[in-house]
Amino acid sequence: MRIAVVAPSCPLKREAAQRVEAIVAERGDCELAIHPQCFLTDGHFAGPDEARLAALRDAMADASVEAIWFARGGYGSNRIAEAALAQIPDEARRKTYMGYSDAGFLHAGLHKAGVEVAWGPMPQDVLRSGGEAAINRALDWLVRRDPAALEPGLEAPAMAFNLTVLSNLLGTPLEPDFARVDLIIEEVSEQLYRIDRTMFHVTASANVRRVARLRLGRVSDVLANDPEFGRDETAIVEEWCARSGIPFGGRADIGHDAQNRVVPFGSQSR
Amino acid sequence: MRIAVVAPSCPLKREAAQRVEAIVAERGDCELAIHPQCFLTDGHFAGPDEARLAALRDAMADASVEAIWFARGGYGSNRIAEAALAQIPDEARRKTYMGYSDAGFLHAGLHKAGVEVAWGPMPQDVLRSGGEAAINRALDWLVRRDPAALEPGLEAPAMAFNLTVLSNLLGTPLEPDFARVDLIIEEVSEQLYRIDRTMFHVTASANVRRVARLRLGRVSDVLANDPEFGRDETAIVEEWCARSGIPFGGRADIGHDAQNRVVPFGSQSR
Repeated sequence: MRIAVVAPSCPLKREAAQRVEAIVAERGDCELAIHPQCFLTDGHFAGPDEARLAALRDAMADASVEAIWFARGGYGSNRIAEAALAQIPDEARRKTYMGYSDAGFLHAGLHKAGVEVAWGPMPQDVLRSGGEAAINRALDWLVRRDPAALEPGLEAPAMAFNLTVLSNLLGTPLEPDFARVDLIIEEVSEQLYRIDRTMFHVTASANVRRVARLRLGRVSDVLANDPEFGRDETAIVEEWCARSGIPFGGRADIGHDAQNRVVPFGSQSR
Repeated sequence: MRIAVVAPSCPLKREAAQRVEAIVAERGDCELAIHPQCFLTDGHFAGPDEARLAALRDAMADASVEAIWFARGGYGSNRIAEAALAQIPDEARRKTYMGYSDAGFLHAGLHKAGVEVAWGPMPQDVLRSGGEAAINRALDWLVRRDPAALEPGLEAPAMAFNLTVLSNLLGTPLEPDFARVDLIIEEVSEQLYRIDRTMFHVTASANVRRVARLRLGRVSDVLANDPEFGRDETAIVEEWCARSGIPFGGRADIGHDAQNRVVPFGSQSR
């Protein structure tokens, strides 16, 4: 299997690329095509919008590639998502797309367009402690659909999003249909009052209220709240689920860490 | 004029209350009724939801009060807004409501319900450098509709919101009609990449795209972006306006500071 790596958000570190290529060489069951765009920089981004869009469209149209792996998150895929999803070539529909965090903007729009996407570890994760296992988990699923890579509690159809990304795609052309979905959210580097505010926003959505249940992945690197917020992330999410009539399904095994599991969107991939 | 002060978000400092009461005593043209709820604390909030809601509803129903002044922002008014706006008593419809920042959740819902609201300085602002002038500006407008207190470029009907608050009320029952509105936004304590992301979200709204124009107040205490984002807040807002077909109307004279001006919502208050 040949896998293209592109960076629609922030640049990939050279060291991460080298370590992931070494893992792939050792596995011997796949081949990486790391697009040179991954190493561009333009302020916050992995190159200007035009370069990130062109690299993504190149990979989408490339018949030699079976999967597209987003190099890392950060911020920026929303800036090119609508253009990337206009006139999706047939070749692009035959591929699987994997990533998480900021890549959720693309996941949402691709899934809405009927293309196979999955939440899962990304190449830059190799730099985390335990990151090699994360890379192998992602590749085990991409290459041979290994069920051991999956979030263990999935009840398809499922979706997974970073909470803030989800909040920011509601009402945009990227918003998918959440009816009957096992929706998993997670968060990183936010204050609890912001998580409370974002839960207010997300659970007010009539579309989100149609989920089968909402589960909470890990909430890591919580920023200090002054004064103490007064309740934890589970209590916050449970309260907004109760207020909005959404069944709360408990915790889920995803997050911004090396333990992050794979969540294929929709029902096609169990 | 008798003005009730309540705190639907975070607690008011005693020192701020005392200093505002001294200003009011010196003016002699109005009277403050600072609700004891303003000094409650419950984690992040000025008392539990029930206490904040009860104080707001007390003030709304109080026939002796002509205006309700929100004590300060922070976070939390969204948690009680829908309940406060259910079955608005006739007395509540005869009053003017003033505040800014987190109070925008209430402003949106009150304005949508046909009640007079205005963006403007709040009691806690007296603690800012130059805060006495801000308090007098707010009172000049509340008590005698002094046009010198107004944001100088208003083309009614107008509205003003903190950008993040605006983003978080879209799609909720609080969302007002933005058609033909002179919409002013401002921001505080955010990173530029977040402002870019929030502008993506806000300008994707079909409702927001119906504004007459969008103007940008001050963006203060911008948090460090690593690496440098690559463009400033004006360029960010101009770009998303251009992308979404919203006329950009330039900068506006509001913000999280003592220079903050008054923006009456709608067309009734020029």
